[in-house]
Amino acid sequence: MTRIYLDNNATTMVDPAVRDLMTRFYCELYGNPNSIHSFGSDTHPYLRKAMDQVYSGINASDDDDIVMNGCATEGNNTVIQGVYHSLLRTGKKKEIVTSSVEHPCVMNSCRYLEEEMGVKVHYLPVNSNGTIEVQALKDHINDDTALVSIMWANNETGMINPIKELAEATKERGALFHTDAVQAIGKVPVDLSKVPVDFLTLSAHKFHGAKGVGALYIRKGVELPPLLYGGEHMGGRRSGTLNVAGIVGMGLAMELAVNALDYELKEVRALRDKLEDSLLALPDVVVVGDREHRTPNTILCGVKGVEGESMLWDLNRQGIAASTGSACSSEDLEASQILVKVGQGKDLAHTSIRLSLSRFTTADEIDFVIQEFPKAVERLRSISSSY
Amino acid sequence: MTRIYLDNNATTMVDPAVRDLMTRFYCELYGNPNSIHSFGSDTHPYLRKAMDQVYSGINASDDDDIVMNGCATEGNNTVIQGVYHSLLRTGKKKEIVTSSVEHPCVMNSCRYLEEEMGVKVHYLPVNSNGTIEVQALKDHINDDTALVSIMWANNETGMINPIKELAEATKERGALFHTDAVQAIGKVPVDLSKVPVDFLTLSAHKFHGAKGVGALYIRKGVELPPLLYGGEHMGGRRSGTLNVAGIVGMGLAMELAVNALDYELKEVRALRDKLEDSLLALPDVVVVGDREHRTPNTILCGVKGVEGESMLWDLNRQGIAASTGSACSSEDLEASQILVKVGQGKDLAHTSIRLSLSRFTTADEIDFVIQEFPKAVERLRSISSSY
Repeated sequence: MTRIYLDNNATTMVDPAVRDLMTRFYCELYGNPNSIHSFGSDTHPYLRKAMDQVYSGINASDDDDIVMNGCATEGNNTVIQGVYHSLLRTGKKKEIVTSSVEHPCVMNSCRYLEEEMGVKVHYLPVNSNGTIEVQALKDHINDDTALVSIMWANNETGMINPIKELAEATKERGALFHTDAVQAIGKVPVDLSKVPVDFLTLSAHKFHGAKGVGALYIRKGVELPPLLYGGEHMGGRRSGTLNVAGIVGMGLAMELAVNALDYELKEVRALRDKLEDSLLALPDVVVVGDREHRTPNTILCGVKGVEGESMLWDLNRQGIAASTGSACSSEDLEASQILVKVGQGKDLAHTSIRLSLSRFTTADEIDFVIQEFPKAVERLRSISSSY
Repeated sequence: MTRIYLDNNATTMVDPAVRDLMTRFYCELYGNPNSIHSFGSDTHPYLRKAMDQVYSGINASDDDDIVMNGCATEGNNTVIQGVYHSLLRTGKKKEIVTSSVEHPCVMNSCRYLEEEMGVKVHYLPVNSNGTIEVQALKDHINDDTALVSIMWANNETGMINPIKELAEATKERGALFHTDAVQAIGKVPVDLSKVPVDFLTLSAHKFHGAKGVGALYIRKGVELPPLLYGGEHMGGRRSGTLNVAGIVGMGLAMELAVNALDYELKEVRALRDKLEDSLLALPDVVVVGDREHRTPNTILCGVKGVEGESMLWDLNRQGIAASTGSACSSEDLEASQILVKVGQGKDLAHTSIRLSLSRFTTADEIDFVIQEFPKAVERLRSISSSY
């Protein structure tokens, strides 16, 4: 059976070139880079190149720190718990500002500080386009704000926040700015020479690298206590034996993703638009957010009268892999609330379907989805009690 | 040039069978296990098998939790910071007991709690054999003790602590017991049906799995707040997208390591003993700890008059990879203090050389080291100012 993977916002296929490179670091170049022998030092040029590729991919300055770690969840926890220790626990500041549509690893880190550690957290709402209004941040931010944490692009909707303006508004008020950019890398230009973020989180498996490796960007001179104490790897900012294969693979994945950005913005977007047009031609289907402010690979639609989960199973039977929205935490099958948050009405709450493409998605695959999607909608609506 | 890897306590070569298995999860079985489609569910049998292999490898009960994570540093920080939040921050208990020879990721986690959070930490000394005395723990432990954290086997010396007795003494006093077992897996039997530890840390890359993946054992019913908040993976105990390739590889690596335990205890030990005998035949060479209480692959020796680092470079020129002791954090070239801690005198402090074998070490390799080691000693002593 043909199988079509349209769940690239959850995780991506490793680029075969990345896999081939990584494989060398298991039985051949397996030394611990910290070791004083050739098995260790043989890894150094590869690690240096990977660091360069990651720095270059987000246009970081050599003076900034990019700390390799295990995943975006670790990166986001490091920032939020770290700022708690540096500014909030000590009473210098009192509040974190975030949005109501952050990924669970930002949301639940904030909830933990709110419920367990007595930190004030303010959740900015999204507008009907699914993005954060700069004015809403400006209206709220105050001298007690330690940190503003707002994602670059949303995992469920693909909607791109005005990160430059949000970061600038934050810096003007003397607070720190963090962005979870896992959904942005390889889909939109990320240039940190132009956008004054203090912290940025990324994860290799979202841009065709491997699971289990990510990075945290920390701007030059910004204090941040570590989350993991230990052998003082990464200049003391993140201890733990370096995952050489993962890091080297992430470097290459970053370079390939940035090189493919034009393709993503033109070709992947064209396929996405074609698919989206076909969905919008169906009755009572809505798509969240305008295309201009959306990552080029993402569609989040609400299909009136159709349970998102039922739709997923139907599509899966045809070999099509999609998601209800936040596939990162779908163990409990809880439906996405994003359609309600953007003001689409409660009748659409459980109807969301996310289709997320990648540079490996083909025109034939999209044609097949365009053919099968309406059949599933029709079948499920014919047995729906609410349509 | 022949290259001989005798730094297996720092990191190991991935077993080729583990590499081959892992490679399938990059471009083929790459789904996020939490996703509701076949790309996700296709990974489930492999993950279940890997979990079984890890449970079985340490003889954990099905009711216990084994939480897959990124590395031993993460596991150890999770325990120590978690117990801080559950028992120390709330004032229920006041103290952590650990040893003076723990790995930096335990040591520095404790130091952080001591220096930043006002926690009392007691550091048990080692005896001349390099191990912790059960009586020393019994003499100190008290009602204020929240946690005792003592490594199963030491990374520098290979010396095996009396973990069963230490854990029992701890449980009798109502405290929690944690052991960092990264150096024990595959080298000594680890049977948690017989040893009442509450927490146990392991790391795949120490037993021929990949870097960037580890696990934390938590005994049934034992409370421990998470270190990483997020999408509630691993039953909420460790959020973050599962590193499927790494976990599946770790499962196989565990099974292979446990299956090879007899080989390790006989054949690897025989090679180690042969090498050790040849070192002890040299004048003014000491080896830390008796062989009965030592992991079968490890020699830590002090070579009077010879700087450990110089010796490493000399050996490296002959293609032999060794370490000064703690290779996990040797970026600063700081010499091991372990020889001083076991009472060998300060003149040996900077002379330590660790040779650590694996099941991939061959008899020919050991013969070559037996031939080259004395030459290096002779050359370096001939230019030594202290010999």
